[in-house]
Amino acid sequence: MYRLKSMAAVALACGVLLSVGGRAETAEKQVAQYVRFQVADTVAYGIVEGDRVRRLDGDLFGQWKPTGTTHQLSDVKLLVPAQPSKVLAAAHNYRSHGGDTAPPEVPQFFYKPPSCLIAQAEPIVIPEGATNVQYEAELVIVIGRRARNVPEARALDYVLGVTCGNDVSARDWQKNDTQWWRAKGSDTFGPCGPRIVAGLDYDDLLVQLRQNGEVKQQERTSQMIFNVSQMVSFASRHCTLEAGDLIFTGTSGQTTNIAPGDVIEVEVEGVGVLKNPVAVP
Amino acid sequence: MYRLKSMAAVALACGVLLSVGGRAETAEKQVAQYVRFQVADTVAYGIVEGDRVRRLDGDLFGQWKPTGTTHQLSDVKLLVPAQPSKVLAAAHNYRSHGGDTAPPEVPQFFYKPPSCLIAQAEPIVIPEGATNVQYEAELVIVIGRRARNVPEARALDYVLGVTCGNDVSARDWQKNDTQWWRAKGSDTFGPCGPRIVAGLDYDDLLVQLRQNGEVKQQERTSQMIFNVSQMVSFASRHCTLEAGDLIFTGTSGQTTNIAPGDVIEVEVEGVGVLKNPVAVP
Repeated sequence: MYRLKSMAAVALACGVLLSVGGRAETAEKQVAQYVRFQVADTVAYGIVEGDRVRRLDGDLFGQWKPTGTTHQLSDVKLLVPAQPSKVLAAAHNYRSHGGDTAPPEVPQFFYKPPSCLIAQAEPIVIPEGATNVQYEAELVIVIGRRARNVPEARALDYVLGVTCGNDVSARDWQKNDTQWWRAKGSDTFGPCGPRIVAGLDYDDLLVQLRQNGEVKQQERTSQMIFNVSQMVSFASRHCTLEAGDLIFTGTSGQTTNIAPGDVIEVEVEGVGVLKNPVAVP
Repeated sequence: MYRLKSMAAVALACGVLLSVGGRAETAEKQVAQYVRFQVADTVAYGIVEGDRVRRLDGDLFGQWKPTGTTHQLSDVKLLVPAQPSKVLAAAHNYRSHGGDTAPPEVPQFFYKPPSCLIAQAEPIVIPEGATNVQYEAELVIVIGRRARNVPEARALDYVLGVTCGNDVSARDWQKNDTQWWRAKGSDTFGPCGPRIVAGLDYDDLLVQLRQNGEVKQQERTSQMIFNVSQMVSFASRHCTLEAGDLIFTGTSGQTTNIAPGDVIEVEVEGVGVLKNPVAVP
Protein backbone atom coordinates (compact mmCIF):
# COMPACT_ATOMS: atom_id res chain seq x y z
CA MET A 1 0.00 0.00 0.00
CA TYR A 2 2.04 2.90 -1.31
CA ARG A 3 -0.31 5.39 0.26
CA LEU A 4 0.28 4.19 3.79
CA LYS A 5 3.97 4.06 3.08
CA SER A 6 3.93 7.62 1.82
CA MET A 7 1.98 8.76 4.83
CA ALA A 8 4.56 7.27 7.14
CA ALA A 9 7.08 9.51 5.47
CA VAL A 10 5.38 12.79 6.13
CA ALA A 11 6.43 15.28 8.68
CA LEU A 12 3.04 16.60 9.67
CA ALA A 13 0.89 14.35 11.83
CA CYS A 14 -1.85 14.81 14.35
CA GLY A 15 -3.46 12.46 16.84
CA VAL A 16 -7.23 12.26 16.65
CA LEU A 17 -9.49 10.82 19.34
CA LEU A 18 -11.92 8.27 17.97
CA SER A 19 -14.63 6.56 19.98
CA VAL A 20 -14.68 2.91 18.95
CA GLY A 21 -17.01 0.46 20.64
CA GLY A 22 -17.32 2.73 23.65
CA ARG A 23 -13.57 3.08 24.15
CA ALA A 24 -11.66 6.22 23.36
CA GLU A 25 -8.67 5.38 21.18
CA THR A 26 -6.00 7.49 19.63
CA ALA A 27 -5.73 6.97 15.88
CA GLU A 28 -2.87 8.37 13.89
CA LYS A 29 -4.71 10.54 11.39
CA GLN A 30 -1.96 11.78 9.17
CA VAL A 31 -2.15 15.05 7.31
CA ALA A 32 0.24 15.50 4.41
CA GLN A 33 0.66 18.30 1.90
CA TYR A 34 2.05 17.69 -1.59
CA VAL A 35 2.93 20.07 -4.39
CA ARG A 36 4.13 19.71 -7.95
CA PHE A 37 6.70 22.35 -8.71
CA GLN A 38 9.36 23.60 -11.06
CA VAL A 39 12.75 24.93 -10.07
CA ALA A 40 15.16 25.81 -12.87
CA ASP A 41 14.60 23.07 -15.47
CA THR A 42 13.43 20.45 -12.98
CA VAL A 43 9.79 19.48 -12.47
CA ALA A 44 9.09 17.33 -9.42
CA TYR A 45 6.62 16.45 -6.72
CA GLY A 46 7.41 17.48 -3.19
CA ILE A 47 6.18 17.25 0.41
CA VAL A 48 5.59 20.55 2.14
CA GLU A 49 7.48 20.91 5.42
CA GLY A 50 6.60 24.29 6.89
CA ASP A 51 7.81 26.94 4.46
CA ARG A 52 10.02 24.47 2.61
CA VAL A 53 9.34 21.69 0.11
CA ARG A 54 11.21 18.38 0.11
CA ARG A 55 11.71 16.96 -3.35
CA LEU A 56 10.38 13.45 -4.00
CA ASP A 57 12.11 10.90 -6.18
CA GLY A 58 9.49 9.08 -8.27
CA ASP A 59 5.80 9.51 -8.97
CA LEU A 60 3.48 10.79 -6.26
CA PHE A 61 0.79 8.56 -7.79
CA GLY A 62 3.02 5.50 -7.83
CA GLN A 63 6.31 4.65 -6.12
CA TRP A 64 8.32 7.44 -4.55
CA LYS A 65 10.68 8.28 -1.75
CA PRO A 66 11.72 11.58 -0.17
CA THR A 67 15.12 12.95 -1.16
CA GLY A 68 17.59 15.05 0.82
CA THR A 69 16.86 18.12 -1.34
CA THR A 70 14.63 20.89 -0.03
CA HIS A 71 13.73 24.31 -1.42
CA GLN A 72 12.20 27.41 0.04
CA LEU A 73 8.53 27.31 -1.12
CA SER A 74 8.82 30.92 -2.22
CA ASP A 75 11.69 29.95 -4.54
CA VAL A 76 9.76 27.41 -6.65
CA LYS A 77 7.05 27.80 -9.26
CA LEU A 78 3.96 25.86 -8.21
CA LEU A 79 2.35 23.82 -10.98
CA VAL A 80 -1.11 22.28 -11.29
CA PRO A 81 -0.69 19.62 -8.58
CA ALA A 82 -1.71 16.63 -10.77
CA GLN A 83 -1.64 15.69 -14.44
CA PRO A 84 -5.09 14.21 -14.91
CA SER A 85 -6.21 12.04 -17.82
CA LYS A 86 -9.63 13.59 -17.25
CA VAL A 87 -11.36 16.12 -15.05
CA LEU A 88 -14.90 15.59 -13.86
CA ALA A 89 -16.96 18.34 -12.30
CA ALA A 90 -20.30 18.23 -10.52
CA ALA A 91 -23.23 20.47 -11.43
CA HIS A 92 -25.83 21.39 -8.81
CA ASN A 93 -24.20 19.78 -5.77
CA TYR A 94 -25.27 22.45 -3.23
CA ARG A 95 -28.92 23.33 -2.65
CA SER A 96 -27.88 26.97 -2.29
CA HIS A 97 -26.65 27.00 -5.92
CA GLY A 98 -29.57 25.14 -7.50
CA GLY A 99 -32.18 27.84 -7.09
CA ASP A 100 -35.70 26.50 -7.51
CA THR A 101 -34.53 23.33 -9.27
CA ALA A 102 -35.13 20.11 -7.33
CA PRO A 103 -31.91 18.50 -6.06
CA PRO A 104 -30.65 15.83 -8.48
CA GLU A 105 -31.18 12.15 -7.64
CA VAL A 106 -27.69 11.17 -8.81
CA PRO A 107 -24.48 13.20 -9.22
CA GLN A 108 -24.62 15.34 -12.37
CA PHE A 109 -21.15 15.40 -13.83
CA PHE A 110 -19.57 17.06 -16.84
CA TYR A 111 -16.00 17.15 -18.11
CA LYS A 112 -13.49 19.96 -18.09
CA PRO A 113 -10.52 19.29 -20.44
CA PRO A 114 -7.03 19.09 -18.90
CA SER A 115 -6.06 21.92 -21.27
CA CYS A 116 -8.10 24.38 -19.20
CA LEU A 117 -6.11 23.82 -16.00
CA ILE A 118 -3.90 26.62 -14.70
CA ALA A 119 -1.77 26.78 -11.57
CA GLN A 120 -1.50 29.08 -8.61
CA ALA A 121 -0.86 32.69 -9.70
CA GLU A 122 -1.48 32.07 -13.41
CA PRO A 123 -3.99 34.45 -15.03
CA ILE A 124 -7.58 33.64 -15.94
CA VAL A 125 -8.07 34.98 -19.47
CA ILE A 126 -11.57 35.95 -20.59
CA PRO A 127 -11.87 34.62 -24.15
CA GLU A 128 -13.04 36.70 -27.11
CA GLY A 129 -16.80 36.47 -27.37
CA ALA A 130 -17.38 35.21 -23.82
CA THR A 131 -19.84 37.16 -21.72
CA ASN A 132 -20.84 36.88 -18.08
CA VAL A 133 -17.75 34.95 -17.04
CA GLN A 134 -18.03 33.94 -13.37
CA TYR A 135 -16.03 32.19 -10.63
CA GLU A 136 -17.10 29.01 -8.84
CA ALA A 137 -15.14 28.05 -5.70
CA GLU A 138 -14.89 24.28 -5.26
CA LEU A 139 -13.26 21.49 -3.31
CA VAL A 140 -11.41 19.26 -5.79
CA ILE A 141 -10.87 15.52 -5.21
CA VAL A 142 -7.54 14.06 -6.40
CA ILE A 143 -7.78 10.35 -7.30
CA GLY A 144 -4.82 8.31 -6.02
CA ARG A 145 -5.15 5.09 -8.00
CA ARG A 146 -7.27 3.46 -10.67
CA ALA A 147 -10.90 3.19 -9.54
CA ARG A 148 -13.58 1.17 -11.30
CA ASN A 149 -16.91 0.16 -9.75
CA VAL A 150 -15.77 1.18 -6.30
CA PRO A 151 -18.36 0.90 -3.49
CA GLU A 152 -19.00 4.01 -1.41
CA ALA A 153 -17.62 2.36 1.71
CA ARG A 154 -14.20 1.95 0.07
CA ALA A 155 -14.17 5.07 -2.09
CA LEU A 156 -11.81 7.05 0.16
CA ASP A 157 -9.13 4.37 -0.38
CA TYR A 158 -8.91 5.70 -3.94
CA VAL A 159 -8.58 9.37 -2.95
CA LEU A 160 -5.07 10.74 -2.52
CA GLY A 161 -6.31 14.06 -1.16
CA VAL A 162 -8.02 17.28 -2.08
CA THR A 163 -7.10 20.67 -3.47
CA CYS A 164 -8.81 23.97 -4.33
CA GLY A 165 -10.45 24.65 -7.68
CA ASN A 166 -12.22 27.42 -9.55
CA ASP A 167 -14.74 26.16 -12.10
CA VAL A 168 -14.68 29.33 -14.19
CA SER A 169 -17.87 29.52 -16.27
CA ALA A 170 -19.01 31.67 -19.20
CA ARG A 171 -22.73 31.87 -18.43
CA ASP A 172 -23.99 32.87 -21.87
CA TRP A 173 -22.17 30.01 -23.59
CA GLN A 174 -23.39 27.73 -20.78
CA LYS A 175 -26.95 28.77 -21.53
CA ASN A 176 -26.84 28.81 -25.32
CA ASP A 177 -24.49 26.02 -26.43
CA THR A 178 -25.72 22.43 -26.66
CA GLN A 179 -23.10 21.34 -24.08
CA TRP A 180 -20.70 23.19 -21.76
CA TRP A 181 -17.46 22.38 -23.63
CA ARG A 182 -16.31 26.03 -23.91
CA ALA A 183 -18.52 27.52 -21.19
CA LYS A 184 -16.48 25.57 -18.66
CA GLY A 185 -13.60 24.22 -20.75
CA SER A 186 -11.96 27.24 -22.37
CA ASP A 187 -8.23 27.69 -21.81
CA THR A 188 -7.52 29.02 -18.28
CA PHE A 189 -11.03 28.12 -16.99
CA GLY A 190 -9.63 25.60 -14.52
CA PRO A 191 -7.48 27.20 -11.79
CA CYS A 192 -6.36 24.37 -9.52
CA GLY A 193 -4.03 24.09 -6.54
CA PRO A 194 -1.83 25.09 -4.82
CA ARG A 195 -1.44 21.86 -2.79
CA ILE A 196 -2.90 18.38 -2.50
CA VAL A 197 -3.73 17.80 1.15
CA ALA A 198 -4.37 14.28 2.46
CA GLY A 199 -5.84 13.13 5.76
CA LEU A 200 -8.55 15.75 6.35
CA ASP A 201 -12.27 15.13 6.82
CA TYR A 202 -13.09 16.15 3.24
CA ASP A 203 -16.82 16.26 3.94
CA ASP A 204 -16.62 19.06 6.49
CA LEU A 205 -14.39 21.85 5.21
CA LEU A 206 -15.21 25.51 4.75
CA VAL A 207 -14.91 26.66 1.13
CA GLN A 208 -14.67 30.39 0.53
CA LEU A 209 -14.22 32.66 -2.45
CA ARG A 210 -12.91 36.21 -2.34
CA GLN A 211 -13.06 38.66 -5.22
CA ASN A 212 -10.60 41.49 -4.65
CA GLY A 213 -10.61 40.61 -0.97
CA GLU A 214 -14.39 40.60 -0.54
CA VAL A 215 -15.96 37.30 0.51
CA LYS A 216 -18.46 36.22 -2.18
CA GLN A 217 -19.00 32.53 -1.43
CA GLN A 218 -18.73 30.57 1.81
CA GLU A 219 -20.26 27.23 2.62
CA ARG A 220 -19.07 23.99 4.22
CA THR A 221 -18.66 20.80 2.19
CA SER A 222 -21.03 19.20 4.70
CA GLN A 223 -23.75 20.94 2.66
CA MET A 224 -22.88 19.05 -0.52
CA ILE A 225 -25.81 17.00 -1.88
CA PHE A 226 -23.40 14.14 -2.73
CA ASN A 227 -20.35 13.70 -0.52
CA VAL A 228 -16.85 12.74 -1.62
CA SER A 229 -17.38 8.98 -1.28
CA GLN A 230 -20.67 9.09 -3.15
CA MET A 231 -19.18 11.08 -6.02
CA VAL A 232 -16.09 8.89 -6.41
CA SER A 233 -18.17 5.72 -6.26
CA PHE A 234 -20.79 6.93 -8.72
CA ALA A 235 -18.25 8.27 -11.20
CA SER A 236 -16.24 5.02 -11.02
CA ARG A 237 -19.32 2.97 -11.86
CA HIS A 238 -19.48 4.69 -15.24
CA CYS A 239 -15.98 5.69 -16.23
CA THR A 240 -12.75 4.29 -14.91
CA LEU A 241 -10.89 6.87 -12.84
CA GLU A 242 -7.11 7.01 -13.21
CA ALA A 243 -4.47 8.12 -10.72
CA GLY A 244 -4.27 11.90 -10.91
CA ASP A 245 -7.79 12.39 -12.22
CA LEU A 246 -9.68 15.28 -10.64
CA ILE A 247 -13.28 15.74 -9.54
CA PHE A 248 -14.47 19.31 -9.01
CA THR A 249 -17.27 18.88 -6.47
CA GLY A 250 -19.63 21.74 -7.27
CA THR A 251 -20.11 25.28 -6.04
CA SER A 252 -22.39 26.95 -3.50
CA GLY A 253 -24.58 30.02 -3.44
CA GLN A 254 -24.62 32.72 -6.07
CA THR A 255 -21.79 33.88 -8.30
CA THR A 256 -21.00 37.15 -10.04
CA ASN A 257 -19.01 38.32 -13.04
CA ILE A 258 -15.25 38.67 -13.03
CA ALA A 259 -13.40 41.38 -14.90
CA PRO A 260 -9.82 42.02 -16.04
CA GLY A 261 -7.77 43.26 -13.11
CA ASP A 262 -9.68 41.25 -10.50
CA VAL A 263 -7.91 38.92 -8.08
CA ILE A 264 -9.84 35.75 -7.28
CA GLU A 265 -9.02 33.60 -4.25
CA VAL A 266 -10.47 30.19 -3.44
CA GLU A 267 -9.74 29.04 0.10
CA VAL A 268 -10.47 25.56 1.37
CA GLU A 269 -10.07 25.07 5.12
CA GLY A 270 -6.89 23.19 5.90
CA VAL A 271 -5.87 23.12 2.24
CA GLY A 272 -4.76 26.63 1.39
CA VAL A 273 -5.52 29.54 -0.88
CA LEU A 274 -5.65 29.34 -4.68
CA LYS A 275 -5.08 32.85 -6.00
CA ASN A 276 -5.38 33.89 -9.64
CA PRO A 277 -5.56 37.29 -11.28
CA VAL A 278 -7.92 37.95 -14.17
CA ALA A 279 -5.72 39.01 -17.05
CA VAL A 280 -5.74 42.52 -18.34
CA PRO A 281 -5.84 42.37 -22.18
CA MET B 1 8.64 19.69 -40.53
CA TYR B 2 8.39 16.19 -39.12
CA ARG B 3 5.18 15.51 -40.99
CA LEU B 4 6.73 16.04 -44.39
CA LYS B 5 9.68 13.97 -43.33
CA SER B 6 7.41 11.20 -42.21
CA MET B 7 5.47 11.34 -45.41
CA ALA B 8 8.63 10.92 -47.42
CA ALA B 9 9.16 7.66 -45.61
CA VAL B 10 5.90 6.03 -46.50
CA ALA B 11 5.50 3.38 -49.07
CA LEU B 12 2.08 4.36 -50.35
CA ALA B 13 1.87 7.40 -52.55
CA CYS B 14 -0.34 8.63 -55.31
CA GLY B 15 -0.08 11.50 -57.77
CA VAL B 16 -3.09 13.78 -57.82
CA LEU B 17 -3.86 16.27 -60.56
CA LEU B 18 -4.55 19.72 -59.25
CA SER B 19 -5.63 22.63 -61.36
CA VAL B 20 -3.75 25.69 -60.18
CA GLY B 21 -4.21 29.00 -61.93
CA GLY B 22 -5.48 27.31 -65.07
CA ARG B 23 -2.50 24.98 -65.30
CA ALA B 24 -2.74 21.31 -64.53
CA GLU B 25 0.03 20.33 -62.15
CA THR B 26 0.93 17.06 -60.54
CA ALA B 27 1.14 17.36 -56.78
CA GLU B 28 2.54 14.62 -54.65
CA LYS B 29 -0.42 13.93 -52.44
CA GLN B 30 0.88 11.26 -50.11
CA VAL B 31 -1.37 8.76 -48.45
CA ALA B 32 0.02 7.05 -45.37
CA GLN B 33 -1.51 4.63 -42.93
CA TYR B 34 -0.36 4.40 -39.32
CA VAL B 35 -1.30 2.04 -36.52
CA ARG B 36 -0.46 1.73 -32.86
CA PHE B 37 0.02 -1.89 -31.93
CA GLN B 38 1.21 -4.37 -29.39
CA VAL B 39 3.26 -7.47 -30.10
CA ALA B 40 4.43 -9.51 -27.11
CA ASP B 41 5.34 -6.87 -24.48
CA THR B 42 6.17 -4.15 -27.01
CA VAL B 43 3.85 -1.25 -27.81
CA ALA B 44 4.82 0.82 -30.86
CA TYR B 45 3.57 2.89 -33.74
CA GLY B 46 3.94 1.48 -37.22
CA ILE B 47 3.40 2.28 -40.90
CA VAL B 48 1.17 -0.09 -42.79
CA GLU B 49 2.79 -1.60 -45.88
CA GLY B 50 0.25 -3.86 -47.54
CA ASP B 51 -0.55 -6.65 -45.09
CA ARG B 52 2.50 -5.89 -42.96
CA VAL B 53 3.34 -3.15 -40.46
CA ARG B 54 6.79 -1.55 -40.18
CA ARG B 55 7.70 -0.60 -36.64
CA LEU B 56 8.63 3.03 -36.01
CA ASP B 57 11.29 4.15 -33.59
CA GLY B 58 10.07 7.22 -31.68
CA ASP B 59 6.78 9.05 -31.36
CA LEU B 60 4.42 9.29 -34.33
CA PHE B 61 3.44 12.73 -32.99
CA GLY B 62 7.03 13.90 -32.61
CA GLN B 63 10.31 12.61 -33.97
CA TRP B 64 10.44 9.13 -35.44
CA LYS B 65 12.11 6.98 -38.06
CA PRO B 66 11.18 3.66 -39.63
CA THR B 67 13.01 0.56 -38.37
CA GLY B 68 13.94 -2.63 -40.18
CA THR B 69 11.37 -4.63 -38.21
CA THR B 70 8.06 -5.59 -39.78
CA HIS B 71 5.21 -7.79 -38.59
CA GLN B 72 2.30 -9.46 -40.29
CA LEU B 73 -0.69 -7.20 -39.48
CA SER B 74 -2.68 -10.26 -38.46
CA ASP B 75 -0.03 -11.09 -35.84
CA VAL B 76 -0.29 -7.83 -33.85
CA LYS B 77 -2.94 -6.48 -31.51
CA LEU B 78 -4.20 -3.14 -32.79
CA LEU B 79 -4.56 -0.45 -30.12
CA VAL B 80 -6.47 2.83 -30.09
CA PRO B 81 -4.33 4.68 -32.66
CA ALA B 82 -3.60 7.74 -30.50
CA GLN B 83 -3.33 8.58 -26.80
CA PRO B 84 -5.28 11.82 -26.61
CA SER B 85 -5.18 14.31 -23.75
CA LYS B 86 -8.78 15.05 -24.69
CA VAL B 87 -11.46 13.93 -27.12
CA LEU B 88 -13.89 16.41 -28.60
CA ALA B 89 -17.01 15.33 -30.43
CA ALA B 90 -19.47 17.33 -32.51
CA ALA B 91 -23.22 17.25 -31.93
CA HIS B 92 -25.61 17.95 -34.82
CA ASN B 93 -23.09 18.21 -37.65
CA TYR B 94 -25.28 16.60 -40.36
CA ARG B 95 -28.68 18.00 -41.29
CA SER B 96 -29.96 14.43 -41.66
CA HIS B 97 -29.32 13.80 -37.95
CA GLY B 98 -30.69 17.06 -36.58
CA GLY B 99 -34.36 16.40 -37.29
CA ASP B 100 -36.44 19.56 -37.14
CA THR B 101 -33.80 21.49 -35.22
CA ALA B 102 -32.21 24.40 -37.10
CA PRO B 103 -28.56 23.77 -38.02
CA PRO B 104 -26.22 25.28 -35.42
CA GLU B 105 -24.42 28.53 -36.20
CA VAL B 106 -21.15 27.32 -34.69
CA PRO B 107 -19.78 23.82 -34.05
CA GLN B 108 -21.43 22.27 -30.98
CA PHE B 109 -18.81 20.21 -29.22
CA PHE B 110 -18.79 18.04 -26.12
CA TYR B 111 -16.07 15.90 -24.53
CA LYS B 112 -15.70 12.17 -24.39
CA PRO B 113 -13.13 11.06 -21.77
CA PRO B 114 -10.07 9.11 -22.97
CA SER B 115 -11.16 6.32 -20.61
CA CYS B 116 -14.06 5.46 -22.92
CA LEU B 117 -11.84 4.65 -25.91
CA ILE B 118 -11.57 1.05 -27.09
CA ALA B 119 -9.66 -0.42 -30.02
CA GLN B 120 -10.52 -2.54 -33.01
CA ALA B 121 -12.21 -5.80 -31.96
CA GLU B 122 -12.70 -4.81 -28.32
CA PRO B 123 -16.26 -5.23 -27.02
CA ILE B 124 -18.76 -2.44 -26.40
CA VAL B 125 -20.27 -3.13 -22.97
CA ILE B 126 -23.77 -1.85 -22.21
CA PRO B 127 -23.53 -0.47 -18.66
CA GLU B 128 -25.94 -1.39 -15.90
CA GLY B 129 -28.88 1.00 -15.97
CA ALA B 130 -28.29 2.25 -19.52
CA THR B 131 -31.22 2.04 -21.90
CA ASN B 132 -31.53 2.76 -25.62
CA VAL B 133 -27.81 2.50 -26.30
CA GLN B 134 -27.11 3.36 -29.94
CA TYR B 135 -24.23 3.51 -32.42
CA GLU B 136 -23.04 6.67 -34.21
CA ALA B 137 -20.64 6.21 -37.13
CA GLU B 138 -18.19 9.10 -37.45
CA LEU B 139 -15.06 10.35 -39.12
CA VAL B 140 -12.49 11.15 -36.41
CA ILE B 141 -9.82 13.83 -36.83
CA VAL B 142 -6.39 13.11 -35.31
CA ILE B 143 -4.50 16.27 -34.32
CA GLY B 144 -0.81 16.16 -35.25
CA ARG B 145 0.63 19.02 -33.22
CA ARG B 146 -0.37 21.66 -30.72
CA ALA B 147 -3.01 23.98 -32.17
CA ARG B 148 -4.14 27.23 -30.61
CA ASN B 149 -6.08 29.95 -32.43
CA VAL B 150 -5.46 28.35 -35.79
CA PRO B 151 -7.13 30.01 -38.80
CA GLU B 152 -9.26 27.79 -41.03
CA ALA B 153 -6.90 28.24 -43.97
CA ARG B 154 -4.07 26.63 -41.99
CA ALA B 155 -6.06 24.13 -39.94
CA LEU B 156 -5.12 21.09 -42.03
CA ASP B 157 -1.44 21.69 -41.16
CA TYR B 158 -2.37 20.59 -37.63
CA VAL B 159 -4.15 17.41 -38.69
CA LEU B 160 -2.10 14.22 -38.83
CA GLY B 161 -4.91 12.23 -40.40
CA VAL B 162 -8.26 10.64 -39.73
CA THR B 163 -9.63 7.39 -38.39
CA CYS B 164 -13.02 5.76 -37.78
CA GLY B 165 -15.05 6.25 -34.61
CA ASN B 166 -18.26 5.12 -33.02
CA ASP B 167 -19.80 7.69 -30.67
CA VAL B 168 -21.80 5.15 -28.66
CA SER B 169 -24.67 6.94 -26.91
CA ALA B 170 -27.11 5.95 -24.15
CA ARG B 171 -30.14 7.95 -25.27
CA ASP B 172 -32.07 7.97 -21.99
CA TRP B 173 -29.06 9.28 -20.04
CA GLN B 174 -28.47 11.74 -22.88
CA LYS B 175 -32.02 13.02 -22.49
CA ASN B 176 -32.30 13.02 -18.70
CA ASP B 177 -28.87 13.95 -17.29
CA THR B 178 -27.77 17.58 -17.07
CA GLN B 179 -24.80 16.86 -19.36
CA TRP B 180 -23.74 13.89 -21.51
CA TRP B 181 -20.84 12.69 -19.34
CA ARG B 182 -22.05 9.07 -19.05
CA ALA B 183 -24.46 9.07 -22.01
CA LYS B 184 -21.44 9.40 -24.28
CA GLY B 185 -18.53 8.86 -21.89
CA SER B 186 -19.12 5.49 -20.22
CA ASP B 187 -16.32 2.95 -20.45
CA THR B 188 -16.22 1.33 -23.95
CA PHE B 189 -18.40 4.07 -25.51
CA GLY B 190 -15.55 5.24 -27.76
CA PRO B 191 -14.53 2.58 -30.33
CA CYS B 192 -11.75 4.15 -32.41
CA GLY B 193 -9.43 2.93 -35.15
CA PRO B 194 -8.12 0.79 -36.68
CA ARG B 195 -5.71 3.10 -38.56
CA ILE B 196 -4.82 6.76 -38.90
CA VAL B 197 -4.82 7.63 -42.59
CA ALA B 198 -3.15 10.81 -43.82
CA GLY B 199 -3.37 12.50 -47.18
CA LEU B 200 -7.03 11.95 -48.12
CA ASP B 201 -9.61 14.60 -48.92
CA TYR B 202 -11.20 14.37 -45.48
CA ASP B 203 -14.20 16.43 -46.53
CA ASP B 204 -15.45 13.99 -49.13
CA LEU B 205 -15.39 10.46 -47.73
CA LEU B 206 -18.24 7.99 -47.47
CA VAL B 207 -19.00 7.00 -43.84
CA GLN B 208 -21.04 3.86 -43.33
CA LEU B 209 -22.28 1.83 -40.40
CA ARG B 210 -23.30 -1.80 -40.52
CA GLN B 211 -25.12 -3.62 -37.73
CA ASN B 212 -24.74 -7.37 -38.16
CA GLY B 213 -23.90 -6.77 -41.80
CA GLU B 214 -26.90 -4.56 -42.56
CA VAL B 215 -26.13 -0.98 -43.65
CA LYS B 216 -27.76 1.44 -41.18
CA GLN B 217 -25.96 4.72 -41.86
CA GLN B 218 -24.31 6.05 -45.00
CA GLU B 219 -23.49 9.61 -45.85
CA ARG B 220 -20.51 11.50 -47.23
CA THR B 221 -18.49 13.89 -45.09
CA SER B 222 -19.24 16.52 -47.75
CA GLN B 223 -22.63 16.76 -46.02
CA MET B 224 -21.10 17.88 -42.72
CA ILE B 225 -22.40 21.28 -41.58
CA PHE B 226 -18.85 22.22 -40.43
CA ASN B 227 -15.95 20.71 -42.32
CA VAL B 228 -12.66 19.48 -40.89
CA SER B 229 -10.86 22.82 -41.17
CA GLN B 230 -13.75 24.72 -39.61
CA MET B 231 -13.97 22.33 -36.67
CA VAL B 232 -10.24 22.30 -35.94
CA SER B 233 -10.04 26.08 -36.19
CA PHE B 234 -13.08 26.71 -34.00
CA ALA B 235 -12.05 24.22 -31.34
CA SER B 236 -8.52 25.67 -31.25
CA ARG B 237 -9.88 29.15 -30.64
CA HIS B 238 -11.31 27.95 -27.32
CA CYS B 239 -9.18 25.12 -26.05
CA THR B 240 -5.63 24.33 -27.02
CA LEU B 241 -5.47 21.09 -29.00
CA GLU B 242 -2.54 18.77 -28.28
CA ALA B 243 -0.83 16.25 -30.54
CA GLY B 244 -2.89 13.07 -30.46
CA ASP B 245 -6.14 14.78 -29.49
CA LEU B 246 -9.21 13.50 -31.33
CA ILE B 247 -12.27 15.21 -32.77
CA PHE B 248 -15.28 13.00 -33.51
CA THR B 249 -17.04 14.89 -36.29
CA GLY B 250 -20.69 13.98 -35.78
CA THR B 251 -23.03 11.37 -37.16
CA SER B 252 -25.61 11.29 -39.95
CA GLY B 253 -29.19 10.08 -40.29
CA GLN B 254 -31.03 7.99 -37.76
CA THR B 255 -29.63 5.45 -35.33
CA THR B 256 -31.08 2.39 -33.64
CA ASN B 257 -30.44 0.37 -30.50
CA ILE B 258 -27.61 -2.11 -30.16
CA ALA B 259 -27.89 -5.35 -28.21
CA PRO B 260 -25.48 -7.91 -26.77
CA GLY B 261 -24.30 -10.22 -29.52
CA ASP B 262 -24.40 -7.54 -32.24
CA VAL B 263 -21.40 -6.77 -34.41
CA ILE B 264 -21.01 -3.10 -35.29
CA GLU B 265 -18.81 -1.91 -38.17
CA VAL B 266 -17.91 1.67 -39.00
CA GLU B 267 -16.33 2.06 -42.43
CA VAL B 268 -14.77 5.28 -43.66
CA GLU B 269 -13.82 5.32 -47.32
CA GLY B 270 -10.08 4.98 -47.75
CA VAL B 271 -9.55 4.53 -44.02
CA GLY B 272 -10.79 1.06 -43.18
CA VAL B 273 -13.32 -0.79 -41.09
CA LEU B 274 -13.66 -0.43 -37.31
CA LYS B 275 -15.37 -3.59 -36.06
CA ASN B 276 -16.56 -4.12 -32.49
CA PRO B 277 -18.84 -6.74 -30.97
CA VAL B 278 -21.39 -5.78 -28.34
CA ALA B 279 -20.52 -7.86 -25.30
CA VAL B 280 -22.70 -10.64 -24.11
CA PRO B 281 -23.03 -10.31 -20.31
